[in-house]
Amino acid sequence: MEKVKISPGKLRGLRRLADEEGRFRMMAIDQRGSLKRMIKKATGREATYEDLAQVKKLIVKVLSPYSSATLIDPTYGFPNAAKYIPPEVGLLLAAEETGYLPAGTGEKERKSRLLEGWGVEKIKRAGADGVKLLLYYRDDASPEVVEHQRRIARQVGEECRAYDLPYVLELVSYPFKEDEAKAEDYEKNPEAAKNFARRKPEIVFSYVKEFAKPEYHVDILKVEFPADLKFCKEYADGAFDGIKRDPVYDLSEVEDFVREVTRLAKVPWVILSAGVGIEEFLEEVEIASRGGASGFLCGRALWKYCVDFYPDVEAVEEWLMTSGVENFQRLYAASAQAKPFFETEAFGSFSNLELTDKGPDWYKLYPGFGSA
Amino acid sequence: MEKVKISPGKLRGLRRLADEEGRFRMMAIDQRGSLKRMIKKATGREATYEDLAQVKKLIVKVLSPYSSATLIDPTYGFPNAAKYIPPEVGLLLAAEETGYLPAGTGEKERKSRLLEGWGVEKIKRAGADGVKLLLYYRDDASPEVVEHQRRIARQVGEECRAYDLPYVLELVSYPFKEDEAKAEDYEKNPEAAKNFARRKPEIVFSYVKEFAKPEYHVDILKVEFPADLKFCKEYADGAFDGIKRDPVYDLSEVEDFVREVTRLAKVPWVILSAGVGIEEFLEEVEIASRGGASGFLCGRALWKYCVDFYPDVEAVEEWLMTSGVENFQRLYAASAQAKPFFETEAFGSFSNLELTDKGPDWYKLYPGFGSA
Repeated sequence: MEKVKISPGKLRGLRRLADEEGRFRMMAIDQRGSLKRMIKKATGREATYEDLAQVKKLIVKVLSPYSSATLIDPTYGFPNAAKYIPPEVGLLLAAEETGYLPAGTGEKERKSRLLEGWGVEKIKRAGADGVKLLLYYRDDASPEVVEHQRRIARQVGEECRAYDLPYVLELVSYPFKEDEAKAEDYEKNPEAAKNFARRKPEIVFSYVKEFAKPEYHVDILKVEFPADLKFCKEYADGAFDGIKRDPVYDLSEVEDFVREVTRLAKVPWVILSAGVGIEEFLEEVEIASRGGASGFLCGRALWKYCVDFYPDVEAVEEWLMTSGVENFQRLYAASAQAKPFFETEAFGSFSNLELTDKGPDWYKLYPGFGSA
Repeated sequence: MEKVKISPGKLRGLRRLADEEGRFRMMAIDQRGSLKRMIKKATGREATYEDLAQVKKLIVKVLSPYSSATLIDPTYGFPNAAKYIPPEVGLLLAAEETGYLPAGTGEKERKSRLLEGWGVEKIKRAGADGVKLLLYYRDDASPEVVEHQRRIARQVGEECRAYDLPYVLELVSYPFKEDEAKAEDYEKNPEAAKNFARRKPEIVFSYVKEFAKPEYHVDILKVEFPADLKFCKEYADGAFDGIKRDPVYDLSEVEDFVREVTRLAKVPWVILSAGVGIEEFLEEVEIASRGGASGFLCGRALWKYCVDFYPDVEAVEEWLMTSGVENFQRLYAASAQAKPFFETEAFGSFSNLELTDKGPDWYKLYPGFGSA
């Protein structure tokens, strides 16, 4: 295979986000809105800045050392927990404002926003190893919403290239059509929940296909599992949440979906946990890893139950040090077959990688931020 | 103690340059002129670009994994060996042009130059964890030369601050007065060699005092051992090179010199090997570590004999994998008492460190490269 040219910031950043095997075993603790709701549920009162800062610090202290990289937000997380992310662990910083602007059809579509006063330039300056952008996305949303989301994705991609920093693009779909509903709402609206589950693979394929285009300069796609296992024949008896559902596909079909994501992505991809429980996520990680994913970027599935103990800080820590660590160890095992990032289609093998413009004039040809 | 404010790029960079104990066990493979001469001596012909690239690649492949950080040049080294510096090892890139411009009194003084077409901005963009600048320095050189050297040091310090990247300033003195000579020239000119050895502590004190000033924004001082052990009573019988010399100080005085460097430096300091043999350097590291140094940044003392085998690549590798690795292990042992960087006077303790402007507005207050 021909040599694959790569810039030093991208190469070093990708290696720092991965573990020594080249697999991504990453933890997300950049939640803002969802963590506020969890804290409120645990304490019975509105969550303060200090609550979020403390919970994030506790989770980072105990679990970050187990991660190949830690994704954190720049508001509650990073300023308070930066000290506790070990230097050998990669650092990913989130670029987006939490939540979304309701838009499009019946205000049920979602527009993402970049966090104002922040950005790729500051993320680079702070010493991060990569930028993460969360984009809510449906290819079949209103054209204006679709174009808005693509524009943000492209802008961050161009900036990551200018600053020579890996770009992790996270894509999350949502039901917005009259005949669609979440899996949790199955009992209220079984047909709509089945519709959304049935469409999930195509929804994921379409966004992977779109954002794998070179114009977005994505280095790692962080995507949803391309099916809902709660509707997969082998798990539809309520394996994860006690609710029985009519299956819409079986495991061998789901495995095909995963391989299709790998085929379309070309670049390394990892799966996100989207708030599912740890048992369900472990199945997803195992299936995804067998089918070509390069690992996971796991948030709530890893640590969410610790919040139930808050504000009893000692109990939070004890949960993290036992169940939290166990969850992480199980995730390592479930991702044992994940594809090292340098063996994905984009790179082929580690020995194919070569610095762009390698040679005596490299340092002259390598650009500064001028183009940024 | 009051909290010490630190920016994230400096904090993360320093931690990445250090090992998990907070000690600097760094390797230098940024030699250019001196490595060319070594290769010429081994092969009997002029060294080519490919020779330097290959030797650097071999040394990095075998020894970089043992280092807490690797210092490399952007001409021969980095473009060819970048792939082989493990992601968990810190990366230091050299900013200066190799060698110096003869200047001042009888053209015996030295002016440093920055490497044209390179610089702190590119070093940051490439994903390094710090910038190293080598400065030849004598406080008693011509005022024009002194001012030139200080100006470069200040400029790089300001840029490292703007790009939020640790600054390692390396200081190397040289004999330039009529009555001064190198230790190697002792047999030709014993009085002059003794003079230079006798003046060494004051020379080192004066540059440490100067460049510890906040206006230079130095994060790590890389300095010479503040005495010449070949002229120290306990080693003056030819312990290192078989040449007997009249001693000019004894070990207890030398230990005082080291403590004085620590007192003047305030920031973490490491010692450089300046081409001495490994046995002499091990003594220096041990004495420096007992006296408050935070580790070493060791070049030729670690690997120089491997070049004797070049162009027999296999023999070079075999030497590195045995004697080279052993040298590194001995250096770890010799620096066991080195001061973790966060326990130096500048920081006090790890628990004192706190991100500047920590709090909900941190991400807004943290600057971009605008000021750069």
